[in-house]
Amino acid sequence: MAKRKKFIYFFGDGKAEGRADMKNLLGGKGANLAEMTNQGIPVPAGFTITTEVCNYYFQNNRQLPTGLQEDVVKNIRRIERVMGARFGYETNPLLVSVRSGARVSMPGMMDTILNMGLNLKTLKGMIERTDNARFGWDSFRRFLQMYGNVVMGISGDDFEEILEGAKKEKGVERDIELDQHDFEKVVHQYLKMIENKGLEFPMDPWKQIWGGLKAVFDSWNTPRAITYRKLNGFPEEWGTACSVQAMVFGNMGTDSATGVCFTRNPANGEKNFFGEWLPNAQGEDVVAGIRTPLPITKDAKKSLGEVSLEEYLPNCFKQLVNIYKMLERHFKDMQDMEFTVQNGRLWILQTRSGKRTGMAAVRIAVDMVRERLISKDEAVRRVEPEALIQLLAPIFDLEEKKRAVSKGRFLAKGLNAGPGAASGRIIFNADEVEKEAKKGPVILVRAETSPEDIHGMAVAVGILTARGGMTSHAALVARGMGKPCVVGCSALEIDYKKKKMSVSGKTLKQGDWLSIDGGTGEVLQGELKTNPSEVVQVLLEGKRKPADSLIYRYFDTILGWADEIRKLGVRCNADTPRDTLAGRKFGAEGIGLCRTEHMFFEPARIEAIRMMILAETGEERKKALEKILPMQKGDFAEIFREMPGMPVTIRLLDPPLHEFVPHAAKEINALAKKMKVTPAKVKARVNQLHEFNPMLGHRGCRLGITYPEIYDLQVRAIMEAACEVAKRTNHKPLPEIMIPLVGHPNELELIRKRSEQIIKNVMKEKGERLEYKIGTMIEIPRAAVAADLIAEAADFFSFGTNDLTQTALGMSRDDSGAFLPEYVRLRIYPRDPFETIDQEGVGKLMELAVQKGRATRAKLKIGICGEHGGEPSSVEFCHRIGLNYVSCSPYRVPVARMAAAHAVLKEKLNLEAPD
Amino acid sequence: MAKRKKFIYFFGDGKAEGRADMKNLLGGKGANLAEMTNQGIPVPAGFTITTEVCNYYFQNNRQLPTGLQEDVVKNIRRIERVMGARFGYETNPLLVSVRSGARVSMPGMMDTILNMGLNLKTLKGMIERTDNARFGWDSFRRFLQMYGNVVMGISGDDFEEILEGAKKEKGVERDIELDQHDFEKVVHQYLKMIENKGLEFPMDPWKQIWGGLKAVFDSWNTPRAITYRKLNGFPEEWGTACSVQAMVFGNMGTDSATGVCFTRNPANGEKNFFGEWLPNAQGEDVVAGIRTPLPITKDAKKSLGEVSLEEYLPNCFKQLVNIYKMLERHFKDMQDMEFTVQNGRLWILQTRSGKRTGMAAVRIAVDMVRERLISKDEAVRRVEPEALIQLLAPIFDLEEKKRAVSKGRFLAKGLNAGPGAASGRIIFNADEVEKEAKKGPVILVRAETSPEDIHGMAVAVGILTARGGMTSHAALVARGMGKPCVVGCSALEIDYKKKKMSVSGKTLKQGDWLSIDGGTGEVLQGELKTNPSEVVQVLLEGKRKPADSLIYRYFDTILGWADEIRKLGVRCNADTPRDTLAGRKFGAEGIGLCRTEHMFFEPARIEAIRMMILAETGEERKKALEKILPMQKGDFAEIFREMPGMPVTIRLLDPPLHEFVPHAAKEINALAKKMKVTPAKVKARVNQLHEFNPMLGHRGCRLGITYPEIYDLQVRAIMEAACEVAKRTNHKPLPEIMIPLVGHPNELELIRKRSEQIIKNVMKEKGERLEYKIGTMIEIPRAAVAADLIAEAADFFSFGTNDLTQTALGMSRDDSGAFLPEYVRLRIYPRDPFETIDQEGVGKLMELAVQKGRATRAKLKIGICGEHGGEPSSVEFCHRIGLNYVSCSPYRVPVARMAAAHAVLKEKLNLEAPD
Repeated sequence: MAKRKKFIYFFGDGKAEGRADMKNLLGGKGANLAEMTNQGIPVPAGFTITTEVCNYYFQNNRQLPTGLQEDVVKNIRRIERVMGARFGYETNPLLVSVRSGARVSMPGMMDTILNMGLNLKTLKGMIERTDNARFGWDSFRRFLQMYGNVVMGISGDDFEEILEGAKKEKGVERDIELDQHDFEKVVHQYLKMIENKGLEFPMDPWKQIWGGLKAVFDSWNTPRAITYRKLNGFPEEWGTACSVQAMVFGNMGTDSATGVCFTRNPANGEKNFFGEWLPNAQGEDVVAGIRTPLPITKDAKKSLGEVSLEEYLPNCFKQLVNIYKMLERHFKDMQDMEFTVQNGRLWILQTRSGKRTGMAAVRIAVDMVRERLISKDEAVRRVEPEALIQLLAPIFDLEEKKRAVSKGRFLAKGLNAGPGAASGRIIFNADEVEKEAKKGPVILVRAETSPEDIHGMAVAVGILTARGGMTSHAALVARGMGKPCVVGCSALEIDYKKKKMSVSGKTLKQGDWLSIDGGTGEVLQGELKTNPSEVVQVLLEGKRKPADSLIYRYFDTILGWADEIRKLGVRCNADTPRDTLAGRKFGAEGIGLCRTEHMFFEPARIEAIRMMILAETGEERKKALEKILPMQKGDFAEIFREMPGMPVTIRLLDPPLHEFVPHAAKEINALAKKMKVTPAKVKARVNQLHEFNPMLGHRGCRLGITYPEIYDLQVRAIMEAACEVAKRTNHKPLPEIMIPLVGHPNELELIRKRSEQIIKNVMKEKGERLEYKIGTMIEIPRAAVAADLIAEAADFFSFGTNDLTQTALGMSRDDSGAFLPEYVRLRIYPRDPFETIDQEGVGKLMELAVQKGRATRAKLKIGICGEHGGEPSSVEFCHRIGLNYVSCSPYRVPVARMAAAHAVLKEKLNLEAPD
Repeated sequence: MAKRKKFIYFFGDGKAEGRADMKNLLGGKGANLAEMTNQGIPVPAGFTITTEVCNYYFQNNRQLPTGLQEDVVKNIRRIERVMGARFGYETNPLLVSVRSGARVSMPGMMDTILNMGLNLKTLKGMIERTDNARFGWDSFRRFLQMYGNVVMGISGDDFEEILEGAKKEKGVERDIELDQHDFEKVVHQYLKMIENKGLEFPMDPWKQIWGGLKAVFDSWNTPRAITYRKLNGFPEEWGTACSVQAMVFGNMGTDSATGVCFTRNPANGEKNFFGEWLPNAQGEDVVAGIRTPLPITKDAKKSLGEVSLEEYLPNCFKQLVNIYKMLERHFKDMQDMEFTVQNGRLWILQTRSGKRTGMAAVRIAVDMVRERLISKDEAVRRVEPEALIQLLAPIFDLEEKKRAVSKGRFLAKGLNAGPGAASGRIIFNADEVEKEAKKGPVILVRAETSPEDIHGMAVAVGILTARGGMTSHAALVARGMGKPCVVGCSALEIDYKKKKMSVSGKTLKQGDWLSIDGGTGEVLQGELKTNPSEVVQVLLEGKRKPADSLIYRYFDTILGWADEIRKLGVRCNADTPRDTLAGRKFGAEGIGLCRTEHMFFEPARIEAIRMMILAETGEERKKALEKILPMQKGDFAEIFREMPGMPVTIRLLDPPLHEFVPHAAKEINALAKKMKVTPAKVKARVNQLHEFNPMLGHRGCRLGITYPEIYDLQVRAIMEAACEVAKRTNHKPLPEIMIPLVGHPNELELIRKRSEQIIKNVMKEKGERLEYKIGTMIEIPRAAVAADLIAEAADFFSFGTNDLTQTALGMSRDDSGAFLPEYVRLRIYPRDPFETIDQEGVGKLMELAVQKGRATRAKLKIGICGEHGGEPSSVEFCHRIGLNYVSCSPYRVPVARMAAAHAVLKEKLNLEAPD
């Protein structure tokens, strides 16, 4: 017989058949368990069935391969030998868990069953071993529920109903109030209910195993898992591995415990051991937030009443410290570990790279480079671009906070679980948050949160929970979202029914204002002014010196490394000197989009603009425009000064004229008076400017074609400003004039010709020679498909992906609220195309434009200035299709710099290991 | 010295150096003159300077090549020998014309100068030769005017002013009232005026020649000519040839005459010799409409007072008859000839294929096939698709016309110069017509028309002139435009200043209603009902049998031939049984677009629709929809019955819902009452439906996704109707369900899945199995670029080029009025992209979609159902990119059939003679 592939990889007693680099075969979890075992780390013994078996299973009509059963039995025997317990025996019974595990983590997507091997007989042994009948019956109850649901397909409600009945009968509200007899009764009712359905619960532990294995594999192909894979681009062929591992119990008495720990602080990245534990408890008690856990180290104690693991179980603690150091060195990343102490013996149940806040990600990455654990490339790769936003998140104004405290507005202090500070109205229910957040900022307040609350957490400005620790659901999710979050604020008493909470003797009701500081854990009554983050204070406000801000220095270091890696230029969108300065401070290398229309809305200007619009002849129009010229020139001069020697792309007037005219009767009358015409005349012109589809109307270069005086003025203002600034600086301005909404090459040619004449004249008048560029936005599909022709008259292209998305998808952003949420819900568009570039559609047009444009002009400079320019996956796309730069709002410049570096790193990775 | 290219091709005395097939070198005119000479036709001698010389001229800074001057002198000598006259000599002076002529006719676009060689000395000889001093001085006066204007660039007004002064001085109104002395004075005033401008008129005939040649070449690059070339896609490199030809004079006494003739009737195509002439006159007198000309043949005489050429100059007439027959046989097409009789000798000045009405085009083409002159392919090629519209043009209701006549509304009868009948308001000025035509139908009334009136003629519904014959400017242009036109209605007396005209004792002023019949020449007072054309009466009204209508039979024959040639299918857009029938009768092979929303506007239905829209739950919506189901089903059943066995493409609901709701307070209140809700509630929903850019809003399949009940209903209605009709017919309906506004493949997949379930259910319920298709419109750019993915769920594509143009160009059709006319004027878009497919932009997306769609499904059926589907150049484009069919409004189906045949013929031609 040919040697068949190995189905099973064993681990236990310091030796494992697998390794960390076998993730594709053993799944992430299985590979890590093997690796830890080989490192001498005390991991409960077990074995992993390979992903190949999973694939065999699905390719063979959900049949497990011959020989597998035999191997499983053999390996269970090996577990028994290592753990000194016996599977299915009454005396000292071995229980096992059966867990899924793909090559990358798919949290909550697939199934796990604990306590396999329990039946009425082994239960008896369990109870004897633990001397805890309540625990025994409760465990069996849970096992029945989990197995019944996952393997046998019985609705959770059927079990829940029985449990609720038991509580009602006893007149209690919480599970914890039930005793061993109650659970025993529940177990028998469960078994009866199963029988009544014509099903039979397998009391034979082996039968339990076979059912469990199949269920785990089946969970690879549930609709939920398929959707998740599609969404993340994971192929079906990966399959899941299945690990079978001995159970250990942290609730076997006072010499038992359970906990979670991080090798560094996941909130701020500080290099110290950090974790939470509970004596005589099960793992889920720590994470579920039902009991507020205790600190692991002495130093982290917040009160004398607390006891640390370091004090309580000093030997286990020492062992844990050795292990965490070893694991971090080994995996070269901050680890998130789960452990259990069973009767004084430490077991490590899991280790993985820990989730962290943006701040922590930056600090850990930079520190690890300094510790020579990782390379700069790796450090950059470890910091999600979006995470940097958290370092720019606002903090409360210190003075105002002090005043608020002195006025008695301080309410309580919880755990500082998420970055930044926020004020908002209290809402107790995630569904309502979704609705209320549309009206203004909202803080979600819950006793604890669960996965069902995620939609509310996503739109709340902050999250506050009464229970749970730094590793609770609320804390993890909030950190992931970069949201201000305070957890474990036990002073809160929430009454969901009455939509009220009381805290420190005060009662706050739904809708009242509340402020939380995710950096300090403070909770205050009312609204509080927020202040810029430290980074912003250093960079933009000059209130703090770089040397005084640890956060700033980390921020600056990692971005410096990103800059060394990235190839894409990063510019900012800025219409004012203030924004220009901000952009430059955040690292922008020029302006990618300076909109000129925003400059028109100041009262002195809008009047001139209106007179220009209402003019009946080109002559009148010119006269009105002449008033505007010096103002526009001043704007441009200031902007050029703030971007010395760097390109400044100025877009000529874009919006339809009706945006500038008054619509209210009062304003119309005032304007008519000023212009010495009848209000009816003004009104007639205003009506004439009305459009059915202004987005597709008389705007962009169409204005420049029909009212050439406007563009003439703007070109003159730009060039006069540039020439004048050039005289007084060493860094000459680099003006780039951008024509919006071009669809046909003739449009650009016509405007270019006119503009060049003006530029020539101005430079002659001013006796100055400047480099300048004239280019166009690519923002309507025709421009993309005719890009080869348009490139003949364009020195540069800049993608306006907002409008390009609207036109390419035939979807008005302003009106899409009526259907786009439904579209995203149904996954028609996997992500909102206005948030991230729709690569399959809009992206195709962009690729076409790049390819066609460069076919005409090989060196054509191409950028993007839509809002997508600061969104990481869009930035990566822009890198991939060969753009020269991205441009985004000033505050997103750091994100774009990071994303541009990521794009290069990802490309490298793909080149090194192509699929 | 290398042999240089031949600059000049001589013709005269029965021999020519050129040939008809040398049009590229000699221009159309030069080649034909050569050809005629070789055929032995009496053509005044002359020579043609090649288009290569023109190109040399422009490539060399407007210098004529060395050696040309020498050649011109040599060839003028040859003309002298043939014509027996001498250039520049007093005795029997030779005068010549210098004319431009490109390879295809560009009427009126380039310059011509007559009577070159005249000066005070040769004038004397002229007067001696003709014994007509008035003619002599008038000729010189005209020559000065023409030469001064064309060659020397003096404004025509400067000359006109002097001439007007002369008439004023004499107290007369018309040129004809001036005598030889008056003209002599005018000549001297002209010369003085030229001198006063610091210019010198060249009295040396040779200088005149050199100036004239250059002016003719220069006219190739006037803005007017450039525009015309661009418009018609003629490249600059063609250049113009320049023919120099001996002048002959039809005004040398009573044995002289001039005329224009057609080898067949250009108005109706009848095969009889047809023409107009004037004794003792110059050519322009016939064409300019100043004198109403006489008939050529005896048979064509309208009164005894008229004299025909046949009677007046019988020998010349006989010669002319022989020549016309020879020319028509030779060129195998109806010829438009100019002739002059100078002192009893016939000269043919020009022959060319004659312009004709649509009716004449069809009849001549069909007749010539029967006469074995041309092939069927050639016959089809000769009929412009658009010309068929003229055969469908309305005619007056005979009964009503009789009544009108009996009530004294008959005003006058002129010449029946253009097809169809029309009623409109009288406007006397072409500029005003442009303005007034926006308010309602307008008839342009002029004494005569000139090229400056074309913009007014284009928008008038009909044209009436007091002077001029069938070959006058008005008649030619109107026939080209397919417009009702009556010319030479000499009973009219028009007073432009007072904006009045009197006719038959009545006075009509500007703005009064008038009716003209271009088929009979009748002019009637007031408005008259029009009736369908003969073709329409035969096909749609059953009022006439095919055998009784000559027009119908020709129409049917040529379209039959077109059908044999074409490869594109032709369907119609039809929403009603009536339109469906019309489409089928006009030759549609199915319905390409049946819009379902128009069916909703009947009072009984709109109410149910509104209740559906205002419903708050899916359940309520369903209930309202159930009311609509039987109505929609009824609509579809009727349409299926009218298109037996042919595909019927039904588009599911497309427009945004706000189009269906009431907006006026009264209607809102009524609806609220009916629905038993408050008006405020209705109003709120109406406001909620308001959109900023409805074109890009919540419409098309987005409705089907968010309110799936609507599409469910429509699919059910379609299939129930189809099944029920199938039971009662041999030709089973072929329903094609079309999903509008698809951008993402997921949209189509989702709707397809739902629809297929319903279809399956309906067929089961009805016990019927039908073939059906589910496809999509390609009308937003994303659909085009993602066509490969969309094709996976689509049985067919149909281009919605209206919306595709709006989105691809980012241009709202409703709002484009503010800038598109300017765009077309500036030639940014050479033609209105909503009229003809913008091939460079929208066309590129279409090509992409075809290529991508067929990459996924090689046999994917693809059509077009936008309005472009009936526009000939767009139809040709659709053929070229490989569509299966075009669909257009029923009345344009014949045009589309013809255009589809033309596309094949053009392709053949290109294959035979690639560029």
